[in-house]
Amino acid sequence: MMQQSAIALGVPLALLAETDDASAAQVVVDTLVGDYTDLETLRAWARRCSVVTFDHEHVPTGHLEALEADGTVCRPGPKALIHAQDKAVMRSALGAMGVPCPHSAVVSSLADVEAFAQDSGGYPLVLKTTRGGYDGKGVWVVHDVDEAAGVVSRAEPQGLLAEERIDFVRELSAVVARAPSGQLAAYPVVESVQRDGICVEVVAPAPGLDPARAVESQTIAMSIAAGLDVTGVLAVELFEARDGRILVNELAMRPHNTGHWSIDGAVTSQFENHLRGVLDLPLGHTTARASWTVMANILGGSAPTLYDGYPHVQARDPEVRVHLYGKSVRPGRKVGHVTAYGDDLDEVRERARHAAHWFEGNDGMNEER
Amino acid sequence: MMQQSAIALGVPLALLAETDDASAAQVVVDTLVGDYTDLETLRAWARRCSVVTFDHEHVPTGHLEALEADGTVCRPGPKALIHAQDKAVMRSALGAMGVPCPHSAVVSSLADVEAFAQDSGGYPLVLKTTRGGYDGKGVWVVHDVDEAAGVVSRAEPQGLLAEERIDFVRELSAVVARAPSGQLAAYPVVESVQRDGICVEVVAPAPGLDPARAVESQTIAMSIAAGLDVTGVLAVELFEARDGRILVNELAMRPHNTGHWSIDGAVTSQFENHLRGVLDLPLGHTTARASWTVMANILGGSAPTLYDGYPHVQARDPEVRVHLYGKSVRPGRKVGHVTAYGDDLDEVRERARHAAHWFEGNDGMNEER
Repeated sequence: MMQQSAIALGVPLALLAETDDASAAQVVVDTLVGDYTDLETLRAWARRCSVVTFDHEHVPTGHLEALEADGTVCRPGPKALIHAQDKAVMRSALGAMGVPCPHSAVVSSLADVEAFAQDSGGYPLVLKTTRGGYDGKGVWVVHDVDEAAGVVSRAEPQGLLAEERIDFVRELSAVVARAPSGQLAAYPVVESVQRDGICVEVVAPAPGLDPARAVESQTIAMSIAAGLDVTGVLAVELFEARDGRILVNELAMRPHNTGHWSIDGAVTSQFENHLRGVLDLPLGHTTARASWTVMANILGGSAPTLYDGYPHVQARDPEVRVHLYGKSVRPGRKVGHVTAYGDDLDEVRERARHAAHWFEGNDGMNEER
Repeated sequence: MMQQSAIALGVPLALLAETDDASAAQVVVDTLVGDYTDLETLRAWARRCSVVTFDHEHVPTGHLEALEADGTVCRPGPKALIHAQDKAVMRSALGAMGVPCPHSAVVSSLADVEAFAQDSGGYPLVLKTTRGGYDGKGVWVVHDVDEAAGVVSRAEPQGLLAEERIDFVRELSAVVARAPSGQLAAYPVVESVQRDGICVEVVAPAPGLDPARAVESQTIAMSIAAGLDVTGVLAVELFEARDGRILVNELAMRPHNTGHWSIDGAVTSQFENHLRGVLDLPLGHTTARASWTVMANILGGSAPTLYDGYPHVQARDPEVRVHLYGKSVRPGRKVGHVTAYGDDLDEVRERARHAAHWFEGNDGMNEER
């Protein structure tokens, strides 16, 4: 999807891909297939780039520091990116900035977890690996000391974070873009609907969100972007707690699933603004183009070939926008998304859901996600 | 631009390009650089394609017939495409279908031109090469027999077409898409502003166009698409004559400059609908997303590097959409376009013009195109 925006801007991309059938490798001519954990591979590839940016957070910090020492411009830089890589570092930095977060502590033993439980209202609480989790992986809700013991015994050596379990009404996401100039642009705050820890649907803007909370959410995201010197897109996943608080859950420093609605739904997509941000160009308007935009992820299901979904989906709804990622279908894998927009939220949501379900191989009509 | 839509649809493109720095070759991984006038090159490349389509009209008809004999699916097929390749064939077919066209005749000598002049109201009249003209090249308005003699003496062996010179108010364009199923989708009729035979600006929809004439224009385009069995996009360039008639000027059977506004301005871009048409998928809605959309071409001017235009253009107008084609700048060459949209036509037009002028290297503020 970054390549679509790069084509419009006339900006040539060079890609370091893990495999030659990666989605991006299918559409970027100047692709090197290689291992981003190998510093020499990374260096050889980075030499051809004016600016290096990322579509995941997993490049080791030390490697990025080495690239910067070579004179390579990394945006975001390693000092910013570490906060999207390591949840303990993130919690510590946001706490120091006064950004509202769930109560948390690094734990390395069951005794630490028990101490944390005592300090923060007891069980249930949340345990997370500080690094490497995604789509619900690496996150456990534990209801008692036995469950906690099970997680601690299986935990990776990089450590665990214990967090208070927030009683939330829903999850929100505030996506912003920032340029090295300091310019900031905030997208409308969206609602992110999760199932089994995976985002299945995004509604822009978040329905019924108090305008003051929307501003608060955008302000939190912009403060983080400025405070951590983020360049390009920053997605801040938020809890809207039942007690009214807005609390930061996770950070991503790249175009994010909760911003995909912007491709068809906003004046400037998050991918274009990511590129404009990392290239230090002025940012584009983030305004929505319709009253309501709903993005539904297509998760790998029973349909082996997504393409076969087109005749029904496109004939039933000539306005729905479809994005397939060129990935092989595996159960639960995000293999595409659909976007619908319009004035009636219920209708827009039904259209997006129906199309996504159809691609997944469900009939989509009698099932609630 | 086709690749942007192919990425969304998850449809892999294979490209036969004349040079490795062609715009499309910069963004299509599976590119063969070769000569489309060489049948064996064409055959070797077409073997990897489920469907063959075109971004120009110059592939020889005989070659396309040979591909079809090999079992290659060409959309549009040679029987349709010939009408976009040869103006004499086009005029004859449209005449037989009863489509309103300027009075015309194939001429092969000055005596033929004189006879045509006598039959059709005298000079000035228009002489055109039947094949290979574009952007005003291969078209001459001749005011007397001496000028006609000059053109006839220089004409290519493939022949000339003489046409009555239409006293037109403006030029319009009706872009439609058609699938092999027979489904048709018509974009709003646009006004195409020409300078020196080159389209410089497109306004969607055509301002002040009588709704009955808009329907007439769309009907003409759809009749041609169905009558000639066109698949994919058909652009019909039209004259709105001072006497009220709508007359067909030219045909193109591919996404066309007068449809570029649809990328940012319509629910489904002409590029996506071209792909959907040639893949025999249901077509997407062609509705405009804003009251007014203005597309201004960026022509090669005094600015050697288009990228340098970004800081001003993007900071001045965060809503303008820019498309740069990765082409080297040559005077008058179409190297990109900008699109603006909104509710106030004058303001939208000024924004598009300013941005295009700036990229061209003019200050854009004190000059009328």
